[in-house]
Amino acid sequence: MKPSRCNSPSVDASKPAPVNPRQWSLRQIAEVIGLRLQGDGDRSIRGVATLANAEPDQIAFLANPRYRRDLETTRAAAVVLRADHAAISPVDALICDNPYAAFARIAALFEPAPGVAPGIHRSAIIADEARIAASAHVGPLCCIGARSVVSDGAIVGPGCVIGEDCVIGSDSVLVARVTMVKNVRLGRRVRVHPGAVLGADGFGIAKDDDHWIKVPQLGGVVIGDDCEIGANTTIDRGALDDTVLETDVRLDNQIQIGHNVRIGAHTAIAGCVAIAGSARIGKHCLIGGAAGIVGHIDIADRVTIAAMSLVTHSLHEAGEYASGTPLQASAQWRRNAVRFKHLDAVLRERQHKPTDQETDPDK
Amino acid sequence: MKPSRCNSPSVDASKPAPVNPRQWSLRQIAEVIGLRLQGDGDRSIRGVATLANAEPDQIAFLANPRYRRDLETTRAAAVVLRADHAAISPVDALICDNPYAAFARIAALFEPAPGVAPGIHRSAIIADEARIAASAHVGPLCCIGARSVVSDGAIVGPGCVIGEDCVIGSDSVLVARVTMVKNVRLGRRVRVHPGAVLGADGFGIAKDDDHWIKVPQLGGVVIGDDCEIGANTTIDRGALDDTVLETDVRLDNQIQIGHNVRIGAHTAIAGCVAIAGSARIGKHCLIGGAAGIVGHIDIADRVTIAAMSLVTHSLHEAGEYASGTPLQASAQWRRNAVRFKHLDAVLRERQHKPTDQETDPDK
Amino acid sequence: MKPSRCNSPSVDASKPAPVNPRQWSLRQIAEVIGLRLQGDGDRSIRGVATLANAEPDQIAFLANPRYRRDLETTRAAAVVLRADHAAISPVDALICDNPYAAFARIAALFEPAPGVAPGIHRSAIIADEARIAASAHVGPLCCIGARSVVSDGAIVGPGCVIGEDCVIGSDSVLVARVTMVKNVRLGRRVRVHPGAVLGADGFGIAKDDDHWIKVPQLGGVVIGDDCEIGANTTIDRGALDDTVLETDVRLDNQIQIGHNVRIGAHTAIAGCVAIAGSARIGKHCLIGGAAGIVGHIDIADRVTIAAMSLVTHSLHEAGEYASGTPLQASAQWRRNAVRFKHLDAVLRERQHKPTDQETDPDK
Repeated sequence: MKPSRCNSPSVDASKPAPVNPRQWSLRQIAEVIGLRLQGDGDRSIRGVATLANAEPDQIAFLANPRYRRDLETTRAAAVVLRADHAAISPVDALICDNPYAAFARIAALFEPAPGVAPGIHRSAIIADEARIAASAHVGPLCCIGARSVVSDGAIVGPGCVIGEDCVIGSDSVLVARVTMVKNVRLGRRVRVHPGAVLGADGFGIAKDDDHWIKVPQLGGVVIGDDCEIGANTTIDRGALDDTVLETDVRLDNQIQIGHNVRIGAHTAIAGCVAIAGSARIGKHCLIGGAAGIVGHIDIADRVTIAAMSLVTHSLHEAGEYASGTPLQASAQWRRNAVRFKHLDAVLRERQHKPTDQETDPDK
Repeated sequence: MKPSRCNSPSVDASKPAPVNPRQWSLRQIAEVIGLRLQGDGDRSIRGVATLANAEPDQIAFLANPRYRRDLETTRAAAVVLRADHAAISPVDALICDNPYAAFARIAALFEPAPGVAPGIHRSAIIADEARIAASAHVGPLCCIGARSVVSDGAIVGPGCVIGEDCVIGSDSVLVARVTMVKNVRLGRRVRVHPGAVLGADGFGIAKDDDHWIKVPQLGGVVIGDDCEIGANTTIDRGALDDTVLETDVRLDNQIQIGHNVRIGAHTAIAGCVAIAGSARIGKHCLIGGAAGIVGHIDIADRVTIAAMSLVTHSLHEAGEYASGTPLQASAQWRRNAVRFKHLDAVLRERQHKPTDQETDPDK
Repeated sequence: MKPSRCNSPSVDASKPAPVNPRQWSLRQIAEVIGLRLQGDGDRSIRGVATLANAEPDQIAFLANPRYRRDLETTRAAAVVLRADHAAISPVDALICDNPYAAFARIAALFEPAPGVAPGIHRSAIIADEARIAASAHVGPLCCIGARSVVSDGAIVGPGCVIGEDCVIGSDSVLVARVTMVKNVRLGRRVRVHPGAVLGADGFGIAKDDDHWIKVPQLGGVVIGDDCEIGANTTIDRGALDDTVLETDVRLDNQIQIGHNVRIGAHTAIAGCVAIAGSARIGKHCLIGGAAGIVGHIDIADRVTIAAMSLVTHSLHEAGEYASGTPLQASAQWRRNAVRFKHLDAVLRERQHKPTDQETDPDK
C-alpha cells in the first residue's frame, strides 16, 4: 500500500465520464479528468500501462520517484506527472498535483465493464423470503438465505454463500465465492473479493474449570459505503453489538478483524494485519502490512503503523509508530540478539538503574 | 482472546436447560445457571447485551475491569459479576466467581436454534459410497466424496466440499463453505467456520540438484471432540502420520497448522498464528495472536505465548514467554533500532565480553 | 519447510516408474530409484512410514538428525539414509546422498492415483466459449468462464470458480474450491490447493482529497511450470503488467503475494509470508514462515530469510538475513524490552555518539 495524498482542485469526481468508448484523444482525456496538457492532444489513446512497457498509444504515470529513470526511455503517448517533472518528460505530459489519483481515473475510462446482465442464474439457490432487485445479478452456484436483500445494481458473483438477514447495498459487488454468514449488512458500492468471510463467529471462549465453553456470538457486521475488502479477509460478527467498518475503509487481503472492532472512515489497512476483538481504530489511519493490534484498545485518527509492528496499548495522538528490529545478516543479527537477552543485566551492572517509568514496556 | 479462568462450584454444566423458551424471569435464569441473585427476581428477560447498550429487559456482565465505568450507567435488568463488584451495581446482580462463563451460559439460553432440518438438499452431490445419517443435514451445493460419513445430528452447511474417507462426528457443524480434502476425521461437537481447509497437502518438498521434488503427503487429520476451528484456518494433512488436535482445542481465524503438528487438549490459539510442521504443543496452552512456532519443537503444558512472538526452540517449562520490541513513535524507534544493529560491537568495545552461553540467541 | 539439498547422481528422474503396482520388492525399489541396497532385497514392501511407526513391510527414512534415536528401534523393512548412518541401521538400508529426495520418490510409488476420470461433471457450469480438453477432468459444482482453457490431463476439482481468459496448463491440478478471478495463466504440472485465490484485484488505492479512489487493476497472473500454491494463499493480479511466478516456485499456505510481484525460479516460501506489491525476489531463495517483504524492493538470488523477519530494503547479496529478538520468559523480556526503548538515550549519555551510518536502521 503506497498511498500518495494530494488534493488537486482541478479533478472533478462528480463529472460523469462517457461510458467506455474505449478510444479517446489525449485532449479529451485531459478535459474529462481535468489535467493540464503539455504537447499535442490529437493522439488517439487506447489504454494505460507502466512507463517501462507503454506502447505509443498508451498513457503512463510517474508518482513514485523510484521509477523516474523509466521516464527517460518511455515510449508512452503521454505521462501523467507533477509540474516539477514536466520539463524532463520525453513525451507529452498530463500535469496535475496528484498523478496517481489522476491515473486511477484515466485507467477507469478503459476498464472493461463487468460482463454480467441483471437476473438470477438458474443454478443459484434462493430462499423464498429473500429479495433480489430486478436490476441485480446473482451468478451461478450462489446460495442466498432467508430475509436477505440484494439491492439495485448489485452483483453477486459465482459461488457466493449469503446466509440469513444480510443486506448487499446498491451497486455493491461480491466478486466470487464470498461468504456472508448471517446478519451482515453492506452499504453501497462495497466491493468484496473472493474467499472473504464476513460474519463468522467471533473468538469468544470462557474457561470453566479446566475446559472451554463457547460464548454465543449474537451481533452482526456493518460495512459502510465505498469499503473494499480483500481476498480471504475475515471480519467476525460482534459478540453482542456489531463489528463496524465506517465508510471508505480499504482492506487488503488476508486481514483478520475480530469481533466488535470498529474502524474509522477512510482508514486503509495493508495485507495480513491482525486486529483483535473490541479494538477501536480512528479515521484516516494507515496500518502497514502484517501489523498486529491487540484487543480492547483505542487508536486515534491519522495514526500510521509501520509494517509488522505490534500495537499493545492505546495511541492517543496522531503520528507514526513502529516496533521490531532492523534486518541484518544472520551472523551479525545473532550477536546482537543475544545481547538483547541480557540488556537489562548489562546496563544495570553499569549503574544505570531504570526509573519507575522504565519498567513497563508500554509506558 | 481474553480467557478468564475460574471454577465456580455453583455452575452446573450437566443440568439441561429448557429449550429456547425465549422469555425467562431473572429468578429462573439464576436458578438454571446456578447464580446468587441480588435484587428482584420477577423481571422478565428477553436477551443479553453489553453494559453500555443493554435495555431494561436484557442481562449484561462485568468481567474485564476496563468496562467497570459502564457499570455505573447501565440500564440492564441485571448484571452478572463477581461478589466484590455487587455493592456498586446500580441494578440487580447475578453473582458468581466466573461472570464470563456464566454469561456465556445465559447467552446460550437466548441463542436462536440453527434453522435447518434433517435431510440432504437436492443440489448436493453425494458419492454412492458416502453415508449420511438420517438425522444429519447436508445443505445446498455441497459435495461429499466416497466412503465419507456424516454422523447423527451433524450439520454440513452450504457450499462445503468433503473429499474421500472423511468423518464428521455427531452433532458437529460445518457452518458453510468448509473444505475437508481427504482422510479428515472430526470428533463430536466440532464446529468449523467458513473458508477453513482441513487436510490439504503439507508443505513437503525436497531439493534434488537445483529443483524441488514434491514429497507425497499420505497422512490424515484427526480433530478431537469439542474443537472449534476458525474461518480461513488451514490444517494440513500429515506427511506419513496424522496431524492431530486433541479434545477442546480452540482455534481462531486464519491460523496455519503444518503437517504432523500435535496440539494438546484445551489449548486455545488466537488469530493468524503460524505453526510449522511437526511442532508439538502441550495441553492448556494459550498462544497469542500472530505468534509463530517453528517446526520440530516441543512446547510444554500450560505455556502462554505473547502476541506476535516467535518460538524458535522447545519450551520445557510452563510459564509466559515473549519476543519482540515495544511500540514507539517511529522517530524514537529508528534511533533505538539502529543502536540494536551495533549492540554487540558497542558492548564488546566496553569490555563486556559475552560468555559462551551468550552466543546463541536460543540459550 | 526444511529443505535438504543434495545432488545424488544415481537418482534418475527421467526413468519412468511402473504405474502403481502397489507392491514392490526392496530390490526393485532400489533399482528403480537408483539406491545402494544394504541387506536382503527380497522383502515385499507395501508402503512408507516414519521410523517410529513403520511396520515390517514399510520403508522409512532418516534425513533430520533429530530423529536419529528413532532409527535404533525402528521396525521398518528398510531405511533410506546416508552412507554415514548405514552402519548403525538395525534393519536393511537404502543408501544415497539425499535420503529425503529419494524417500519422496519412493513414496510416490505408493501414492494412490487421483480417482478421477476425464470429463465434465453434469453440475459444472461452463461458458460457451470455454475450451475443455477431452482428457481433462472438471469436477462437480465448478464454474468456468468465457475464453478460459483447461488443457490436456488437467484436473479441476470440486467447487472451483474460474473466471474469464484463464489458462490451466496440461497436467495441472486444482485440488478443490480454487478461485482464478480473471486472466490467470498456469503452466504445466502446477498444483493449487483449496481456498487459494489467484488474480484478485491488487490493493491499488489513491488518496484524493480526504477519500480513496480505486486504481483499476488491469494486469493478470502468470504461474510457471511445476509451481505449487498452498491452501488459502492469495496472488493478486498486476495493476498494469502481470504478477509472475517463474518455474518451480513453491508456496505454502496463507501466503499473500501483492500485485506485480515477481518470484524467481526454484524459490520456496513457507506459510503466512506477506509480500507487498512490486517486490522482486530472486531465484533459489528460501523465505521463512510469516516473514514480511515490503514493496518495490529487489532481493538477490539465493537469499534466505529467517522466519518472521521483515525485509525493508533491497538485498543485493546472497546469504541469510534475520530480524527480531529472541524468545524469553516474559518477566525477563519485559525488562529488556523497556531498555530497548531507551537504548539510544543511554548509549548517547555514555558518550558513544552514533556515526552517520548509524542513524538509518536500513543501513
